[in-house]
Amino acid sequence: MTTLSITGGRVLLPSGTVTNADVLVDQDSGLILEIGDDLAGDEPLDASGSLVTPGFVNGHCHVAMTLLRGYADDKPLESWLREDIWPAEAELNPGDIRVGTELGLLEMIKSGTTAFADMYFEVPEIAAAVEQAGLRARLGHGVISVAKDDEAAREDARTGLEVAREYDGAADGRISTAFMPHSLTTVDGEYLAEFVPEARELDVPVHYHANETTDEVDPIVDEHGVRPLAYAAEKGMLEPGDFVAHGVHLDESEITALAEAGTSVIHCPASNMKLASGMTPVQRLLEAGVTVGLGTDGAASNNDLSMLDEARDAAMIGKLAADDASAVPASAVVEMMTRGSAEAIGLDSGRLEAGAPADLAVIDVDRPHLTPHHDLVSHLAYAAAAADVRHTVCDGRVLMRDREVKTLDEPSVLERASRTAASLVDRADD
Amino acid sequence: MTTLSITGGRVLLPSGTVTNADVLVDQDSGLILEIGDDLAGDEPLDASGSLVTPGFVNGHCHVAMTLLRGYADDKPLESWLREDIWPAEAELNPGDIRVGTELGLLEMIKSGTTAFADMYFEVPEIAAAVEQAGLRARLGHGVISVAKDDEAAREDARTGLEVAREYDGAADGRISTAFMPHSLTTVDGEYLAEFVPEARELDVPVHYHANETTDEVDPIVDEHGVRPLAYAAEKGMLEPGDFVAHGVHLDESEITALAEAGTSVIHCPASNMKLASGMTPVQRLLEAGVTVGLGTDGAASNNDLSMLDEARDAAMIGKLAADDASAVPASAVVEMMTRGSAEAIGLDSGRLEAGAPADLAVIDVDRPHLTPHHDLVSHLAYAAAAADVRHTVCDGRVLMRDREVKTLDEPSVLERASRTAASLVDRADD
Repeated sequence: MTTLSITGGRVLLPSGTVTNADVLVDQDSGLILEIGDDLAGDEPLDASGSLVTPGFVNGHCHVAMTLLRGYADDKPLESWLREDIWPAEAELNPGDIRVGTELGLLEMIKSGTTAFADMYFEVPEIAAAVEQAGLRARLGHGVISVAKDDEAAREDARTGLEVAREYDGAADGRISTAFMPHSLTTVDGEYLAEFVPEARELDVPVHYHANETTDEVDPIVDEHGVRPLAYAAEKGMLEPGDFVAHGVHLDESEITALAEAGTSVIHCPASNMKLASGMTPVQRLLEAGVTVGLGTDGAASNNDLSMLDEARDAAMIGKLAADDASAVPASAVVEMMTRGSAEAIGLDSGRLEAGAPADLAVIDVDRPHLTPHHDLVSHLAYAAAAADVRHTVCDGRVLMRDREVKTLDEPSVLERASRTAASLVDRADD
Repeated sequence: MTTLSITGGRVLLPSGTVTNADVLVDQDSGLILEIGDDLAGDEPLDASGSLVTPGFVNGHCHVAMTLLRGYADDKPLESWLREDIWPAEAELNPGDIRVGTELGLLEMIKSGTTAFADMYFEVPEIAAAVEQAGLRARLGHGVISVAKDDEAAREDARTGLEVAREYDGAADGRISTAFMPHSLTTVDGEYLAEFVPEARELDVPVHYHANETTDEVDPIVDEHGVRPLAYAAEKGMLEPGDFVAHGVHLDESEITALAEAGTSVIHCPASNMKLASGMTPVQRLLEAGVTVGLGTDGAASNNDLSMLDEARDAAMIGKLAADDASAVPASAVVEMMTRGSAEAIGLDSGRLEAGAPADLAVIDVDRPHLTPHHDLVSHLAYAAAAADVRHTVCDGRVLMRDREVKTLDEPSVLERASRTAASLVDRADD
């Protein structure tokens, strides 16, 4: 057995309390062996002056969209997608998606994220990048039928099923999958009715965008006479383990349905604000017993992949949405970005205790903007930033040590991503 | 003449465009001499791979409140102030305020802020810290009359006038002052009527909190029968050069009055969200021609002093407030955190051109979360973070080079601030 010891720091426990302790990890199994005093492992990792937290879990993103960071801002969802994003994405080839994913994974590792759920295209490229980078991920192919003929729509859905089958358990089990119809309006009901049952046979969850904007809710109510999540339930897409992204415009019946079904919500506050989609009723969801995770969405509507930014945004907008400053407190957002997201996307991580996966981040808290130390959980929610992350560990392996990423070549990724993004925009503008 | 040259970077011009250029500074006058090609000065500062921006201007804060960062979160303004903040502040002595201010100035320099407006107590200590740190500031004593007898209230107002007189022009002109009644509800009308005219004789602006919450608006309407800013105008507090903090709950008559008076608004989005105060109608203010700046407010309601966070927050909440994703675009928030704030608090900085004060920040944009470079103004608004700031220059002097602050001893400030904050909380809890 080879062991890793993270020593000299303060550790954020599942109870929400912070204690002085070391963490001992079995690198063979990738699990935490013990949290306690004076633990020495084969590979030491210094955590003095630092807070050891569960690795952050990004519950909803489109990682390769890093290539479009800053390409189109300050537009509402529909026109942003149709006029800017989809035309550019139509030019993406598999190699582009590989380098865009690498750029996003580099950013994730540097901001303490150890796991994520991704909906995009060319999943084999994404899986290869994840395998190399060392993160944990739930991957899926974003299935869309609008603007496609029947044959193309079916082929797209079959791709979604195939990647869900092929990559579940890949990368020594670090990769799992889901069936990911893009949304309830971008995939016609006939395809949902046909292919969702096939996904159930693969025993993978279903993940989709739901109730993001009123422009997406109203057509469903008009066409089907029910709220979107009732429509989703009719299509078999509101089952235990399923998770929806956004959930901004939910009525009480839908909140109750989510809680009863055991379907989780990934809250994406930055994207919801930037696209003026609205304010998710997060406090209400938590009170109803819905599992809520946090996600960055794609970098084109955020514009970064830092979960620390997302946590701060979630606390901020959660209070405004509830008209109550005590709503969505620091402890809740820290829970959401760790165990909440992990549970939502079906991972066992997000907690630091013996037997849990050794997915963690070590955050330097001896910094001006994190001084004094009245409350380190408050600092995680409101003041810590991506650059405060010193080390990132996933599955017992050190992915970043002292801000140096070990699994990806940072200068090479930046150079290739810059070149690829410039070429992509040239092609899209032609 | 001694000169400083900032070379090899891209420069954000007042037009909002970004160009490859060097910046040459006369360190004796503290002014920019030239922006152009191949400029060599006596002291070189490398800006390769970086964006040179105007230094950020924090239009409203209470710097020494860094000592209370994370001390009390997730509470609404009134109970947060009365139950937590004011009792702790009652224990502050001048030495505490000095070290709390040093901590805040350290954080500001490290996040590219070169100027700020501060409302607090023990202004001589604050001025001494500003003189040492090298920043530019407009300082004032926060005058409060509630819970004071007449003698104490008058003494407090006189302190406000005295510091406005004594420190205007201090630190070789880097410090200017304002008369700063805390708010329209925490200073009784009789004192406003008596002392605001005295401030006018000193030729300093008036700065106060206004229309921050409905709890603050309603009593004024009830008692005086007019909206808060109409009441402020009656007291002579809505003049050209005056600036109010917050302005969350403004009606159309007040927006028009601000525009006509030439009184500016400092928007504090993070504080307004965290305290669930509401959403400032920023887009409406901009359309009405009101000068809008950005401020962090105190670190206890934010919880950091990074203007880059504030810019992102302003764009995000500005869109929600307007229900329009095109509202408060990236260019607008970058303008607000530079020239907008500078104009609002009466400084000539916030722009990079020959003849302007050499107040600037150099931001490393060769980072994963700032790649690719479709639009660097977008990155400033949405993706750049405090730790991306490499160098900070104010009045032609390098305050931070390669993340090392030259004017304050970082380890010493952190150690003293930690000790002071712990002692303060012990005393407040007794």
